[in-house]
Amino acid sequence: MFKDFKLIAGRPVYIQVKDYLKHLILKGALQGGQKLPSTRELSTLLKVSRNSIISAYAGLTDDGFAYTVQGQGSYVSLAASTESAAAPSWTVDWKERMNSRALLAEELDIMKRGIRAEKGTISFTSIAPDESLFDLDNVKRAFLDRMSVEGNVLLNYGYAKGYKPLIDYLRQYMEHKGVDMRGKDMLITNGFTEGFDLVLSALGQKHGRVLCENPTHHTAIKNMRLNGFDITGVTMERDGIHLGELKRALEEREYDCAYFVPSYHNPTGIVMSPEKRQGLMKLMAEYRVPVIEDGFNEELRYSGSHVAPLIAAAGGGNSVVYLGSFSKVLFPGLRVGWVLADQELIYYLESVKRARSIHTSTLDQSILYQYLLGGHLEKYLKRARTEYKRKYELTLECCKEYLPYVGLSGDGGLHLFVTFPEGFSTRELLDACRERGVIFTAGDIFFTNGTGQNTLRLGFSRVADGDIRRGIEIIGRAARQLLG
Amino acid sequence: MFKDFKLIAGRPVYIQVKDYLKHLILKGALQGGQKLPSTRELSTLLKVSRNSIISAYAGLTDDGFAYTVQGQGSYVSLAASTESAAAPSWTVDWKERMNSRALLAEELDIMKRGIRAEKGTISFTSIAPDESLFDLDNVKRAFLDRMSVEGNVLLNYGYAKGYKPLIDYLRQYMEHKGVDMRGKDMLITNGFTEGFDLVLSALGQKHGRVLCENPTHHTAIKNMRLNGFDITGVTMERDGIHLGELKRALEEREYDCAYFVPSYHNPTGIVMSPEKRQGLMKLMAEYRVPVIEDGFNEELRYSGSHVAPLIAAAGGGNSVVYLGSFSKVLFPGLRVGWVLADQELIYYLESVKRARSIHTSTLDQSILYQYLLGGHLEKYLKRARTEYKRKYELTLECCKEYLPYVGLSGDGGLHLFVTFPEGFSTRELLDACRERGVIFTAGDIFFTNGTGQNTLRLGFSRVADGDIRRGIEIIGRAARQLLG
Repeated sequence: MFKDFKLIAGRPVYIQVKDYLKHLILKGALQGGQKLPSTRELSTLLKVSRNSIISAYAGLTDDGFAYTVQGQGSYVSLAASTESAAAPSWTVDWKERMNSRALLAEELDIMKRGIRAEKGTISFTSIAPDESLFDLDNVKRAFLDRMSVEGNVLLNYGYAKGYKPLIDYLRQYMEHKGVDMRGKDMLITNGFTEGFDLVLSALGQKHGRVLCENPTHHTAIKNMRLNGFDITGVTMERDGIHLGELKRALEEREYDCAYFVPSYHNPTGIVMSPEKRQGLMKLMAEYRVPVIEDGFNEELRYSGSHVAPLIAAAGGGNSVVYLGSFSKVLFPGLRVGWVLADQELIYYLESVKRARSIHTSTLDQSILYQYLLGGHLEKYLKRARTEYKRKYELTLECCKEYLPYVGLSGDGGLHLFVTFPEGFSTRELLDACRERGVIFTAGDIFFTNGTGQNTLRLGFSRVADGDIRRGIEIIGRAARQLLG
Repeated sequence: MFKDFKLIAGRPVYIQVKDYLKHLILKGALQGGQKLPSTRELSTLLKVSRNSIISAYAGLTDDGFAYTVQGQGSYVSLAASTESAAAPSWTVDWKERMNSRALLAEELDIMKRGIRAEKGTISFTSIAPDESLFDLDNVKRAFLDRMSVEGNVLLNYGYAKGYKPLIDYLRQYMEHKGVDMRGKDMLITNGFTEGFDLVLSALGQKHGRVLCENPTHHTAIKNMRLNGFDITGVTMERDGIHLGELKRALEEREYDCAYFVPSYHNPTGIVMSPEKRQGLMKLMAEYRVPVIEDGFNEELRYSGSHVAPLIAAAGGGNSVVYLGSFSKVLFPGLRVGWVLADQELIYYLESVKRARSIHTSTLDQSILYQYLLGGHLEKYLKRARTEYKRKYELTLECCKEYLPYVGLSGDGGLHLFVTFPEGFSTRELLDACRERGVIFTAGDIFFTNGTGQNTLRLGFSRVADGDIRRGIEIIGRAARQLLG
């Protein structure tokens, strides 16, 4: 006994001794009532200081695994080792006990259907930001600043609605996008995804149908389906959704809500034109369908004028629910997003949020707040836009040079969307490219109606310049071969 | 114009100028196409450096709110101010569009039904930890240590299952509670609440019924109801659930699952005896009902032997789903909890979690990991237990001295539970006490069957010693008056 004890760095020695003894007690090597070695003895056996052994025994006693007899030494508690007299165990078939929603969540979980890439593969699958752009020092400083102002508050319970200073900051931020804030309120969420899921899960389903662009964000498709909605997708044109088709869809059926991504639409990268935004909002008002707006990557504009979000175009109306997040722009690890909407809706969403997860991490919120207040977003965006713009232009150039596409879109953001001739299969292309060390996202997962087999998405944010060129050249060569 | 500009501290001046100008543009005080004042002129008007004005104009241009004409100056973008030509706005009645679950979430939201306490009120309503015990320096150090090791990784996307080092740490932690880890897996969640909600939302409802202790955790009652379960509560005895009544309930009907709080049960504060745990698990095995175990405050044991959780008593079986969290013990602001369960169940829960919120804050997880690794939990618990134990004993003593109770329970933890004679109303008592500057939690919210009007919960963790005595004396006096 005591021969397999090994120390690791970065953890107090006495706790490692305590953990080790617990382990021996639990596996029955030390029995209830058995006397533990003297502290001097164990110190020699484990080659650690006697003080560490003394502290370890005290810890064992605190945790109820040992007791001390004055003048005699420490003994293993009776209860600690006898509980292995376990109750009759039985086996649950958990899969069989899952409901249809849990099974569907697994089925639609593309992380579980993902392609495994060999090391060294050039991957265009990610649209997460490039980590090397992160300004860690300012994040550290933001944390330390906030902690010294109100560390105790940050570590205790916060509010379901969110961290007040952040809410106030974001309200002003949204006002500067032209939003009429009267009668509106805000809820902080664990990123866009939680916000979207909260809204969908609270909405009544009079018709059970939702309208959206086709293609659209695959996480959004997943959440609309998991919340039991039938999805009607409307074709995208070069400057956004096809208004004529949208009007026909609205004439044919009634919808509970619509979901749109007007800026840097995922996956097409299209920014809806201001005229189209007006037309869209007119139609939605005419047919009385509330809009859930995904403010995805609005900040990653590389050129052109400021384009107001739909919620600004709605003026004093309360029919648009805006979902915002800096995840894709700043730090995805900070799980912070927001829902800006009519105050009555937020009142109900607040209760749903509280029931689900009490509140969003206050540390994440306070770090983000302090970082924003200090003006670091502006500086970061300046650098990030320069970097991403260069990559964007390079990717665009390479696509034009190497790919036999019939359609190519992307007005900025972190990805481009490529359409090949009808009948072409980007799944086959992906198979061919993977063998040659290049992967991308086959576009079919973005389509609401089972089409899109001839499309793909190229995320360039995390690909080195040289790899962008090399990767797209390889895709192009493989595509030409498949086209014959 | 330019007269209402006011600087605040802690935010770069140029950004404040930029924000101010945006505000003027958006409200139409500066019109599209209008020339902005020269940088020199505006510098004088706003009393800030000319460099700040130059940077502000550059920022306005980056954001698409202005453009520059070489040699002439800066102009307001046409698009920026004309979009106020808003679409026809219309009004949604959001309450009418909420589904029954959202309405129920609001109805069961006790934060919205809470009692407003005047400043200076002695409040026994909270069972959150005492902030003055927080060791902020170790939290700061844990953050900085983790950031310097892998800051870039922490700020980018993490995994739905959780932060690997924390999972590994917690697996060992649970093993030291006597859990047979074979075939088990772990999912990190945003605290206990999200974990419980995820499990309930994934479970099939063959019978639509769940078993639990009566009374029990009111958040748990809320989430079971929101997930559509019918609740059967089983009476609590002094050493835990009434096994005879439990057996009768199991004989009468079938259940999809059971929810138990074996240690420091909320609200009664009772620790279920080891014998009762064995008896409970035998019954659950006999009737094939999976158990959701709430490991609430297991760490706040002030005396006696280590008591193994139910999941340890289940041995090699896979029928117990354990929900853990350090929120009440350490820092509630760090939204981190865990689900330890059969690996097949975790496989599905992972997909449900990903669909709902992608993943839990990596910063929260990594800070908690580093804090735990450094052995700070042990040190903190030593201090916290000493402090809470003193308060616990004081509260117990005061209850015995001042309250005309017929039942009093609480074996440790952060609260005691008081039962008054049949027919007594703690809501009336609360009204009387509030006038005298003392509040507590009326116990009826913890009951599954509309009873408990004669009970109350006293949370003492955040009440000063003097206030504990003074407060309970006031409650006692008011109670005797009501009793006549």
